[in-house]
Amino acid sequence: MTRDDAMARDLADPVAQLRHRFDLPDGLIYLDGNSLGPPPVGVLKRITAVVADEWGTGLIGSWNAHDWIGLPARVGAKIARLIGAAEDSVVAGDSTSVQLFKLLVAASRLRPDRRVIVTESSIFPTDSYIAASVARLIGAEIHWCGPSDVEASLDDGVAALVLTHIDYRSGWMHDAAAVTAAAHSVGALACWDLCHSAGVVPVNLAEWDADFAVGCGYKYLNGGPGAPAFAYVHPRWHDSLDQPLSGWLGHADPFAFEQSYRPAPGIRRVQTGTPDVLSMSALDAALDAFDDVSMTELRAKSLALTDYFIALADERLAPFGVTVEAPREHNRRGSQVCLRHPEAYGLVQALLARGVVSDFRTPDVARFGFAPLYVKFVDIWDAVDAAASVLANGEFSRPEYGTRRFVT
Amino acid sequence: MTRDDAMARDLADPVAQLRHRFDLPDGLIYLDGNSLGPPPVGVLKRITAVVADEWGTGLIGSWNAHDWIGLPARVGAKIARLIGAAEDSVVAGDSTSVQLFKLLVAASRLRPDRRVIVTESSIFPTDSYIAASVARLIGAEIHWCGPSDVEASLDDGVAALVLTHIDYRSGWMHDAAAVTAAAHSVGALACWDLCHSAGVVPVNLAEWDADFAVGCGYKYLNGGPGAPAFAYVHPRWHDSLDQPLSGWLGHADPFAFEQSYRPAPGIRRVQTGTPDVLSMSALDAALDAFDDVSMTELRAKSLALTDYFIALADERLAPFGVTVEAPREHNRRGSQVCLRHPEAYGLVQALLARGVVSDFRTPDVARFGFAPLYVKFVDIWDAVDAAASVLANGEFSRPEYGTRRFVT
Repeated sequence: MTRDDAMARDLADPVAQLRHRFDLPDGLIYLDGNSLGPPPVGVLKRITAVVADEWGTGLIGSWNAHDWIGLPARVGAKIARLIGAAEDSVVAGDSTSVQLFKLLVAASRLRPDRRVIVTESSIFPTDSYIAASVARLIGAEIHWCGPSDVEASLDDGVAALVLTHIDYRSGWMHDAAAVTAAAHSVGALACWDLCHSAGVVPVNLAEWDADFAVGCGYKYLNGGPGAPAFAYVHPRWHDSLDQPLSGWLGHADPFAFEQSYRPAPGIRRVQTGTPDVLSMSALDAALDAFDDVSMTELRAKSLALTDYFIALADERLAPFGVTVEAPREHNRRGSQVCLRHPEAYGLVQALLARGVVSDFRTPDVARFGFAPLYVKFVDIWDAVDAAASVLANGEFSRPEYGTRRFVT
Repeated sequence: MTRDDAMARDLADPVAQLRHRFDLPDGLIYLDGNSLGPPPVGVLKRITAVVADEWGTGLIGSWNAHDWIGLPARVGAKIARLIGAAEDSVVAGDSTSVQLFKLLVAASRLRPDRRVIVTESSIFPTDSYIAASVARLIGAEIHWCGPSDVEASLDDGVAALVLTHIDYRSGWMHDAAAVTAAAHSVGALACWDLCHSAGVVPVNLAEWDADFAVGCGYKYLNGGPGAPAFAYVHPRWHDSLDQPLSGWLGHADPFAFEQSYRPAPGIRRVQTGTPDVLSMSALDAALDAFDDVSMTELRAKSLALTDYFIALADERLAPFGVTVEAPREHNRRGSQVCLRHPEAYGLVQALLARGVVSDFRTPDVARFGFAPLYVKFVDIWDAVDAAASVLANGEFSRPEYGTRRFVT
């Protein structure tokens, strides 16, 4: 495996031209799209138009003239196409945590006699914090499971199962259809966190028969830092869903200003407050990067990228005590690979100084994300080459580590 | 009262030059800043820099380099100065509905033996929907009161009182200090909705001794459509506040990725998900329009504007069957005035066609907001003149009224 080989792979890559849909700084190797996607080229133009024209000139009239009020559903429909959902079963807004709270309380109300929520101990912490808060509010308890004993944790006392489709650290991916079926076999509802899946691996919520799903807009969907999240509700629950953040935009007739809440029909009842038009417009424009893109082709490239990184890391980094952590089976692998090393933090910082962006996850994980829309094979070759050089020379970098700072 | 008189008032207005801090379309009379404030001039530049440079070039590193992670507190501190709160007692984020949900559940947990929430039947509906949802979740009940019998509704069974400082329709303003004291006298906690107050009337949460407050960023704060909201928590509750949307950004150490939630010290525990950087940055830039502005001077101008509108409407519109609804006493008046008329919807639409923006509130209210940062006295003269012409000639306009559209 040589750098020329990597360049040959890029030349043969059928989706290589999609990289032109992004504004990436020259010379930067960005392997952190699993934390924050870069801006697709249309975003700046769109956000400028929204501020200057829609807001600045159209003012309040743009709620109608530019259908701001319809943005959550419109953006939801675009995301729906990427996650195998009916267009009218996804809505954008709020944060992943807030959306999960809504759906978990709603799930518990659909299973009023059950008082257990099952989730994984390795789930992204905000999900576990929210699940615990919901359990406390409704008088339920959390049963923790590991990725391999999910089915054994299910029984007829379980109201809802909440899992992350792809683990944020290990990149391990569930067989979501099988797990959903197992949940249904005991009468439990299945809720999926798609933060590390949407836009990068094929997701088919309809085929999985999932009840609920949430995900964020700022990783592989490239919607911008802290972009609006999304919520999916299976159509079978649209008219019985009873969620607790019952704000005015989820009301059947928000502008009737009725004193009592009447939920809107369909997915719109998941909405809460006034939609955040600036961020939602950025996400809307960002999603155009997926126009005419085949998720099957993206998945094929993603697997080729992770295969290549794993092979190079095995060959060039393992000798320095690095453990390459990623599922070796394709059907269990997301689009990221972790390297474990006692100096992972220093490695990530040293790579950053060399123009290679990855991120650190405590205590010893260097995490590399491979967004097939814009990552090149030669990026991977260069990143591993840089990591080998850092490891060989012990050039770890350890700038101040503040507990309240964002860790990259 | 003549148009020349209005122009003379503008010439004598000590804060007239603040209008240059806004990008307002030429010729437009904008009396709807109580629904959506226009963009201050710095917003476009800031949002362009955030997208192109901070996000596009800085990418994930901008969480630290541009302190994105600190935005909710930084924006909160700017808002705090406008509402008489300690700088570290306000945080920006989410929507008003979501923030109210957090604080009401938290309030109920601070008063675990009490199971009543008191609120006004005329409160903005999203507040009543959220209060009802909280009551249902915690097994409490709502007691509804009117604006004048709040104190009579309080007893030692009341956990929390939720009121809107200024009524969204009538513009009626509570004596918040007195009402807060009444709540405290029975051991209840007081939560204020400042949506129609923040940035336009003097608010002094510390002096009121309020326990909690929420408000939106898109009205008189001019943060953009659906801008992030804010939450205030009195410092006495900072370390006991126990809110249910316990997402990772409210954790004491978000990047330790602990399995269990440990709330951050201080106001930061009110945060939930990843901050929405684009919208939060727009709000941050918008708040600079308040630099060196005296809330006392703004209030004086606001009262002069509403006095002028009321006097003109009494003289020129009342003869056509219009009822001018606004508290006549200054200390009970917000910064808006409503006109009631059976054809209010048609009046608002006809004014819009003449370049005068107000809004309609069902069933018969035409609502006019007077933002002292940019509204001129001559705007008011022209608006009333246009309304008189519409009423005199019966030129009401009634475009299609869709229930799911935003109503202006």
